[in-house]
Amino acid sequence: MLFMVQMTVNLPQDMPAGTAAEIKAREKEYSQALQRSGKWPHIWRVVGEYKNVSIFDVGSNEELHELLSGLPLFPYMDISVTPLCRHPSAI
Amino acid sequence: MLFMVQMTVNLPQDMPAGTAAEIKAREKEYSQALQRSGKWPHIWRVVGEYKNVSIFDVGSNEELHELLSGLPLFPYMDISVTPLCRHPSAI
Amino acid sequence: MLFMVQMTVNLPQDMPAGTAAEIKAREKEYSQALQRSGKWPHIWRVVGEYKNVSIFDVGSNEELHELLSGLPLFPYMDISVTPLCRHPSAI
Amino acid sequence: MLFMVQMTVNLPQDMPAGTAAEIKAREKEYSQALQRSGKWPHIWRVVGEYKNVSIFDVGSNEELHELLSGLPLFPYMDISVTPLCRHPSAI
Amino acid sequence: MLFMVQMTVNLPQDMPAGTAAEIKAREKEYSQALQRSGKWPHIWRVVGEYKNVSIFDVGSNEELHELLSGLPLFPYMDISVTPLCRHPSAI
Amino acid sequence: MLFMVQMTVNLPQDMPAGTAAEIKAREKEYSQALQRSGKWPHIWRVVGEYKNVSIFDVGSNEELHELLSGLPLFPYMDISVTPLCRHPSAI
Amino acid sequence: MLFMVQMTVNLPQDMPAGTAAEIKAREKEYSQALQRSGKWPHIWRVVGEYKNVSIFDVGSNEELHELLSGLPLFPYMDISVTPLCRHPSAI
Amino acid sequence: MLFMVQMTVNLPQDMPAGTAAEIKAREKEYSQALQRSGKWPHIWRVVGEYKNVSIFDVGSNEELHELLSGLPLFPYMDISVTPLCRHPSAI
Amino acid sequence: MLFMVQMTVNLPQDMPAGTAAEIKAREKEYSQALQRSGKWPHIWRVVGEYKNVSIFDVGSNEELHELLSGLPLFPYMDISVTPLCRHPSAI
Amino acid sequence: MLFMVQMTVNLPQDMPAGTAAEIKAREKEYSQALQRSGKWPHIWRVVGEYKNVSIFDVGSNEELHELLSGLPLFPYMDISVTPLCRHPSAI
Repeated sequence: MLFMVQMTVNLPQDMPAGTAAEIKAREKEYSQALQRSGKWPHIWRVVGEYKNVSIFDVGSNEELHELLSGLPLFPYMDISVTPLCRHPSAI
Repeated sequence: MLFMVQMTVNLPQDMPAGTAAEIKAREKEYSQALQRSGKWPHIWRVVGEYKNVSIFDVGSNEELHELLSGLPLFPYMDISVTPLCRHPSAI
Repeated sequence: MLFMVQMTVNLPQDMPAGTAAEIKAREKEYSQALQRSGKWPHIWRVVGEYKNVSIFDVGSNEELHELLSGLPLFPYMDISVTPLCRHPSAI
Repeated sequence: MLFMVQMTVNLPQDMPAGTAAEIKAREKEYSQALQRSGKWPHIWRVVGEYKNVSIFDVGSNEELHELLSGLPLFPYMDISVTPLCRHPSAI
Repeated sequence: MLFMVQMTVNLPQDMPAGTAAEIKAREKEYSQALQRSGKWPHIWRVVGEYKNVSIFDVGSNEELHELLSGLPLFPYMDISVTPLCRHPSAI
Repeated sequence: MLFMVQMTVNLPQDMPAGTAAEIKAREKEYSQALQRSGKWPHIWRVVGEYKNVSIFDVGSNEELHELLSGLPLFPYMDISVTPLCRHPSAI
Repeated sequence: MLFMVQMTVNLPQDMPAGTAAEIKAREKEYSQALQRSGKWPHIWRVVGEYKNVSIFDVGSNEELHELLSGLPLFPYMDISVTPLCRHPSAI
Repeated sequence: MLFMVQMTVNLPQDMPAGTAAEIKAREKEYSQALQRSGKWPHIWRVVGEYKNVSIFDVGSNEELHELLSGLPLFPYMDISVTPLCRHPSAI
Repeated sequence: MLFMVQMTVNLPQDMPAGTAAEIKAREKEYSQALQRSGKWPHIWRVVGEYKNVSIFDVGSNEELHELLSGLPLFPYMDISVTPLCRHPSAI
Repeated sequence: MLFMVQMTVNLPQDMPAGTAAEIKAREKEYSQALQRSGKWPHIWRVVGEYKNVSIFDVGSNEELHELLSGLPLFPYMDISVTPLCRHPSAI
């Protein structure tokens, strides 16, 4: 079951560089594990912004919320979720 | 080069059913030809709306505009285009 | 799997009264059949507006889109869909 | 008398973890007492957000304001209230 | 129980003048009957707009919806409803 | 001459409790003096928000600005002002 | 007493040219009479739009509404009104 | 003196094809004459939309308004104007 | 050449009172010098807000930017600029 | 390949003047190097705002993102990107 998820990152400008680097490293590891599992099949950077457009493929709303709220950057992100389904013209 | 394209369809409510069906048939054929060519790798329906989220893979802005403005439903759609690029966490 | 669905109805002001009545009668029948099936457990009127707030309980995004796009009033409604899940404080 | 209430939580990012945990514990207790009383019949988490959609069943506007302004998280929330009533198609 | 109701009127520009006059006459009569009953204690015109700000005093959400949806101009109005209660500084 | 004034309070979350209490006490006193004078005939709390809807009855724009900018909470409020006049259907 | 009034004109695209010309001629005459009377001291065109920014100098909200609702183009305009007063830095 | 002008075209969907073609031909001729004169140094199509971003170089606000309001498509366009000046980092 | 300029002031709430007073004094002096020169012919306070509506009369966009960016309160203001020209109905 | 990029700068008000000056000096140098290379052919200041409108001419979305995210002011800017292409009326 597919969802488009748009995430915008807003790190506090007074966060120490080391803290930010550590969170981003954990975020990358977390994201790549989900990508490898097939639950996060697409992630793209929006040009010029600290923002991504992602596609998630999960079994339920609950699973999606669990994955998103576990993101190390979750407390610093604005997230919007759009449920998707098969388009009648898709081949 | 990737772009997210969001298309919302607004057919006039007084368009004859036959005309609408004919335009939609041409739209489907046009879309599927581009999907097969690899230029329109993803198209999803937004749940509950007459709207899609698509990913285009084109060589230039010009090519993207040519493809979009050639859509049979183009005169009846609101379209927004978001340039994408590789995310540093993508595997 | 739960979704909040908000539907605002915009009937064309020049639609003949008989046509409107016929569509609304079919909408009511369609809605009540889904309510009885358990897939549409809640529907409330928003005070002062031709709008409802509903809760759907479906097995997938695809099923929700199929149910919503089958609404007799679908061509005349603005619909927004919000995926829900269990709240950690819910009893 | 039913109201849809949407609550978005914005905890200050510099709030000590202990303080946040204590407020959330009180919030949970407060919410569950109201759920048990029948005044807060539904609470759902919005997927991907620190936000809930709730239904309140109260005797008056005054009572609703008293319940909401007593929430331990009230100073940290954006709240919107939508009055609801019975839908003519509800079974 | 008090509610602020804001009503903006959008009459179709091709409505015959006689029809418009007849609807407005019925609206005035309907409004004045409710004002006399005490259920619609205040109605003010917003300067420069075809819009009013009103205060309703009703027993329930249901009663408010019944009153508003019975307005002769209801099909031609955008309405927003804001639940009010006593202010702690009110004398 | 009537104006609707909507005031939303945003106290800084790090304001000491004593300071906040002192400002609110002065605000209440200031508001009640104006209510008694007849210049502030209505003040209602918006349910679920730290916001009020008020009606002012003043002799001029200048007088209204003087009254509003003298509010002890003025530096912490978003204020919007809507000029009102008699509605032709008012009894 | 000063007010900024912003008026945007939306003539229906199917209005006959003769009708439009006649309304505009009456609008011009009406506006110029008010300008000469001192009640409409400023009117400027917004560059690139069918819109004006105006300053009115009137004795009351009622008088302003009477002047604005009497504009021959009133049924075709979006109007917003902003109450002004003397600025403390004005010379 | 430079201005960014953004123009969005909204032709009525029931405009006869011949009328639309004739207006567009005049628009093109009008635009190209201004481009050759140096007053309209840049015009770009926004990808996926019936919209352009343009730069005008004119002697005054009045001249810009005269040029824009003379566009054959002016009655069918939404136009926004942004005054520009030299950037301190421009080479 | 005329421009409407709308300025909203947002002083940081932790700015020392003495600093604020000093900046406002310089702002007043700066504004009054420009008013006397004829370049800032009108400045009005928006009722109930820390905001002004002004008219500037300058020779070029560059001059306007130089005047505005030199305002002592410039770092603390949201500014929007609207180019104006003579209205065809102005007397 | 052309893109319009709009950048709004929001420096924290508590940033030391020396830090701000140093970042701006690096920003200017960075911008001018790109202007000289032909990749940033236009940069204009928006009158009255700490904002620019720019045109970039790059080979790909990736290149544009790399250039923008390398701006010394990038952490302090809101950026929006609009893909452009040749206008059919351009000479």
